[in-house]
Amino acid sequence: MSVTAAAGFRAAGVTAGLKSSGRDVALVVNTGPLKHAAAVFTSNRVAAAPVLWSRQAISDGRADAVVLNSGGANACTGAPGFADTHTTAEQTAELLTAAGADTSAQDVLVCSTGLIGERLNMPALLGGLQAAVGTLEDTPEAGSQAAEAILTTDTVTKTAAVQTAEFTVGGMAKGAGMLAPGMATMLAVITTDAAVESAQLDAALREAVRVSFNRADSDGCMSTNDTVIAMASGAHPQAGETDAEAFQQALTEVCQRLARELIADAEGAHHEIAVRTIHAADEDQAERASRAVARSNLFKTAIFGGDPNWGRVLAAVGTTDVDFDPTTIDVSINGVWVCRAGGIGEDRSLVDLSARQVEVVIDLHAGHAEATILTNDLTHDYVHENSAYST
Amino acid sequence: MSVTAAAGFRAAGVTAGLKSSGRDVALVVNTGPLKHAAAVFTSNRVAAAPVLWSRQAISDGRADAVVLNSGGANACTGAPGFADTHTTAEQTAELLTAAGADTSAQDVLVCSTGLIGERLNMPALLGGLQAAVGTLEDTPEAGSQAAEAILTTDTVTKTAAVQTAEFTVGGMAKGAGMLAPGMATMLAVITTDAAVESAQLDAALREAVRVSFNRADSDGCMSTNDTVIAMASGAHPQAGETDAEAFQQALTEVCQRLARELIADAEGAHHEIAVRTIHAADEDQAERASRAVARSNLFKTAIFGGDPNWGRVLAAVGTTDVDFDPTTIDVSINGVWVCRAGGIGEDRSLVDLSARQVEVVIDLHAGHAEATILTNDLTHDYVHENSAYST
Repeated sequence: MSVTAAAGFRAAGVTAGLKSSGRDVALVVNTGPLKHAAAVFTSNRVAAAPVLWSRQAISDGRADAVVLNSGGANACTGAPGFADTHTTAEQTAELLTAAGADTSAQDVLVCSTGLIGERLNMPALLGGLQAAVGTLEDTPEAGSQAAEAILTTDTVTKTAAVQTAEFTVGGMAKGAGMLAPGMATMLAVITTDAAVESAQLDAALREAVRVSFNRADSDGCMSTNDTVIAMASGAHPQAGETDAEAFQQALTEVCQRLARELIADAEGAHHEIAVRTIHAADEDQAERASRAVARSNLFKTAIFGGDPNWGRVLAAVGTTDVDFDPTTIDVSINGVWVCRAGGIGEDRSLVDLSARQVEVVIDLHAGHAEATILTNDLTHDYVHENSAYST
Repeated sequence: MSVTAAAGFRAAGVTAGLKSSGRDVALVVNTGPLKHAAAVFTSNRVAAAPVLWSRQAISDGRADAVVLNSGGANACTGAPGFADTHTTAEQTAELLTAAGADTSAQDVLVCSTGLIGERLNMPALLGGLQAAVGTLEDTPEAGSQAAEAILTTDTVTKTAAVQTAEFTVGGMAKGAGMLAPGMATMLAVITTDAAVESAQLDAALREAVRVSFNRADSDGCMSTNDTVIAMASGAHPQAGETDAEAFQQALTEVCQRLARELIADAEGAHHEIAVRTIHAADEDQAERASRAVARSNLFKTAIFGGDPNWGRVLAAVGTTDVDFDPTTIDVSINGVWVCRAGGIGEDRSLVDLSARQVEVVIDLHAGHAEATILTNDLTHDYVHENSAYST
């Protein structure tokens, strides 16, 4: 289930020729009755043209459609690149209006992913747009094809949906956390048929992103194109009865499922690692301790090598300023407390790292908060795919 | 030339059996007349036992000797590990006193490097100490043997010396920046026969470390054991005439040369990369911009792959809050300005990345300051050596 799981949305995914093979242009259209939307963008100050455009287009809380392309990030392309994004939005609006939708360019969001520093093949893209508008459907197949068209080095599509009696939330994503290896871009579009105002949608999306995509950290790199868009159509028969808490829960779950799928498909990864910090003074400190470990190349190579090297966990936590005492901290790896009170704990040879899933637990003994960061190991395949990508 | 280049120092490097082969215990003794010393330690809050000991022992600005071992970091070993360090200092003082030096344990600094989370083989270490005291010499050979005894996964010794009419500064180091791959430890001992008071030595050492070791960032990881020690004997005939500025210059040069040697020998590296930021608002901002690039795994794998991927440079700088305008920033790689005004510049195929040395220049157009961070590429060999180290 993808962006067409919720009522009030049509989608398409077509082959425009931007990539050497496969679908590369996706379109998601909100058919209403509501056109509420919210979005969260990369905090990278070098933001791609589609981010600059969409940030401005979403400011009124309305979006009728999102057009997404793989095969080019349209980042670091200057004023000509921005004009390309503008043209894309205008053409999409014209085509949708010609098809009876009455859409203005200002209500079309644009996302791009692919190599940085190259102009898009605009004739191909515009041809693809025409094909996409002509094949829009509200079927699961159309949702799948859209999810397929945004992939770059991803090996599988990422989709998720949660259904309740009052609404459905569905979505699609591509990439791998703040860094999609090779592409360095994470894109997601989430749709719902709940009748959620754009201000509420915005607040709910920010909270959901905070505890999902922002806690998936494959390799610490932040993209110029990261975008998460949420759109609400209010098309569900019970749309008016949406409980705010239930909606938040569903939206968060969809985002967390998509985030897990991103980490599971991170390029070159052999392990999915959950770094969980418990008994922290507050949630922010728990997140920072986990992130420091998730960003340690030494820790990540150790896990690749099947080595439960808890010393590298401690060395990473030690670089932070979170509350903990180096003489009381405990660390477990896959259930074995290899570090007790900052020193040698249970026998490290008891740790089994043969499975793809790894859980590291760091007990700070400093409070009652916890947080988990999802990451990957650092492997030969990661080096290979990211060194070979553009050459 | 190493720690015996300056007058007033004797050294030894012996095989104690802490490692599977080769020298593993080094001793550097200041024979005076002055015994002034200063040291800079890791800022990691998980500090190894020898760091905890030496931090306290140096607080009076005096050190008679430094004993260093490879084959074990004595980090995360709790109270028993600290007792081992204490015993090491006491035994060294006793042996030196028996040999006529009148040394107390409080004036013996200790450095350790090797695996974290394992106790040292103390009988072997104490045997090595005896051998070291028995073979102390002020010859270049003794300096070389000491430099050899502190190596872990290093492939060559790192030494440097600067001589003037008024003084000599010499030193030895091991590791690779904040992270010595595999070992995660950088140790350095610098000696001089200038008559420098310990307060002046401390200030000069901090300034030298700031622009040398602290700008060598192989992979962003910070050790539990990093230590840089400087000792002044005042044994030079013109020792009393030391010009403060000339001394600072010589000390900085020795530290910078050692830092370059560390990066040149970083485990698994195929390229030495100087990331130079120019026209920054201030030196701190220049350093932060360069460091963000030096810590980008995507940039580092691209260089390994021979790919002048300037988009990854911009994406890294964009994560910082330094003053720059994304539409005016320029980037050159090995002399080719591949990015101009935040967009596509000169032909990237003109960039030659076949040599080991790579220079990236980032022009922020925001001021007059500059700084360079030295780093390495991220290679298959890095992953191999750091995943296989302890298993």
